Amino acid sequence: MMVMYNKVALIGLGLIAGSMSLAMRRGKLAGEIVGYARSQETRNIAREINLVDRVCDTAEEAVQDADLIVLAVPVGAMGPVMEAIAPHLKKGAVVTDVGSVKRSVFDAVIPHMPDGCHFIGCHPMAGTEHSGPHSGFATLFDKRWCLVVPPEDADQAEVDRICDFWRGIGADIEIMEPDHHDLVCAVVSHAPHLIAYTMVGVADDLRRVTDQEVIKFSAAGFRDFTRIAASDPTMWRDVFLTNKDATLEILGRFTEELFALQRAIRTGDGDTLFDYFTRTRAIRRGIIEAGQDTSAPDFGRTPTKSE
Amino acid sequence: MMVMYNKVALIGLGLIAGSMSLAMRRGKLAGEIVGYARSQETRNIAREINLVDRVCDTAEEAVQDADLIVLAVPVGAMGPVMEAIAPHLKKGAVVTDVGSVKRSVFDAVIPHMPDGCHFIGCHPMAGTEHSGPHSGFATLFDKRWCLVVPPEDADQAEVDRICDFWRGIGADIEIMEPDHHDLVCAVVSHAPHLIAYTMVGVADDLRRVTDQEVIKFSAAGFRDFTRIAASDPTMWRDVFLTNKDATLEILGRFTEELFALQRAIRTGDGDTLFDYFTRTRAIRRGIIEAGQDTSAPDFGRTPTKSE
Repeated sequence: MMVMYNKVALIGLGLIAGSMSLAMRRGKLAGEIVGYARSQETRNIAREINLVDRVCDTAEEAVQDADLIVLAVPVGAMGPVMEAIAPHLKKGAVVTDVGSVKRSVFDAVIPHMPDGCHFIGCHPMAGTEHSGPHSGFATLFDKRWCLVVPPEDADQAEVDRICDFWRGIGADIEIMEPDHHDLVCAVVSHAPHLIAYTMVGVADDLRRVTDQEVIKFSAAGFRDFTRIAASDPTMWRDVFLTNKDATLEILGRFTEELFALQRAIRTGDGDTLFDYFTRTRAIRRGIIEAGQDTSAPDFGRTPTKSE
Repeated sequence: MMVMYNKVALIGLGLIAGSMSLAMRRGKLAGEIVGYARSQETRNIAREINLVDRVCDTAEEAVQDADLIVLAVPVGAMGPVMEAIAPHLKKGAVVTDVGSVKRSVFDAVIPHMPDGCHFIGCHPMAGTEHSGPHSGFATLFDKRWCLVVPPEDADQAEVDRICDFWRGIGADIEIMEPDHHDLVCAVVSHAPHLIAYTMVGVADDLRRVTDQEVIKFSAAGFRDFTRIAASDPTMWRDVFLTNKDATLEILGRFTEELFALQRAIRTGDGDTLFDYFTRTRAIRRGIIEAGQDTSAPDFGRTPTKSE
């Protein structure tokens, strides 16, 4: 690997930024990696565990002379952060973000971009249900997709460079247009997350089935929902507020389908249910064939129940 | 281990019955294990892979002289199967089932029970998204829950014996009343499954996001839904048709909550979203503390994407 950017500034030091730092080190992709987080506690932890080469106490200091600036903060914070750092960017600097939504990041960030600097949106589709500076690891992005979303007037050389950078971090690249990005993510990620949150909330809310029972018997399907629903609340609040239209559209379609299946249950229409469940099985096969998951029987996870 | 039943007859030779046979052999729990499946192909495969000691060509032959009969067929088939085998049961025989629903199995099976025989419902809460005679394995039930649901007038000695039998197979036991069983399962399993099926169906149905995109980027949350939605269509059709009331009740509650969250998204009410997502996180912690899952970051599953 070769140094792709002399100085990289990470704004935000959570799971994604931390993992990027460790992956950049592994690939020797950056001359120096500096980082900033708004919380003093996060900065202290990052220093203790040597997460980046240098932790700065202000974002302005971090971006000084940086060749690549990564906005790794919740989507709702991107605009204010960009506004604050804009006057301190060096000529020719590249700004990117790692948000799960793109249109609203474009709208929040691009108006603040100084002349001669470049903004290219990115969305590494990787993560865990953990968050914070402790949660990063160097292999997080290996063989995961990173969606690269350049503005229409982007500098092609800089787009190519950031694609190579993400490949160096371990990811595979797909170029996408911002609105299509937001729709795809609404389907594969945002709507499923809201649904998982809802189902977990309902279970928590029932009085006739105790929390203890829900937890005890969760392996029966519910568990996979709780895993999704344990993700970072701030990040997800911002995702839904900023990808409102696409998420609501998919949820509307979802409700429509759910009502049709509920009606089939109520009227005892077994054929409709059977046909529906047979069709969805095929999608699962497609995912296994595409190598996005294994066919290992995951419901039979290694048992770990304590006594 | 000791022999708990001299002769065990498995009616149905799918994932659950096959795994029971392998676990019984491991624990030396049965003198002889015989099996019957309606499909000739399944019987042939079971013979080829030596899944049970002897495969019978009729259910009547299989249950002859059996001390324990396990109904391991879809819930909708339990009644007719019980009716067919009833005249051939030996005095004192114990009949059990492994269905995911209990009230409707009670209603379908108990009227056919001959005097002097015992029915005790069971629900081993274990499974994978695979089905058929090839899919069984001996450790499927290890440290999983088996809910034992005796009728009110059950013989306590036989209840104790079947509990010991399931413990020999590897499971932990919980005794439950049939209606409460059905409600608990609606929450932790049936409603989540219907929701997962629905979300996968919606994704498959959209025209502006291609199937290829859905499959390619499924790791972003959608993948866990497809895993659930790949389960056996016949089994699940019967579950929903026979646990109609509890499932519809939970789905009604779910829709209500989902609408409240959709409204929060539409009106930009970030506080409601944040509070909700924070609350659901606590349930996940409870599940990990109860040992029903590990805190290992599963979203970062070993990457297997093909090129």
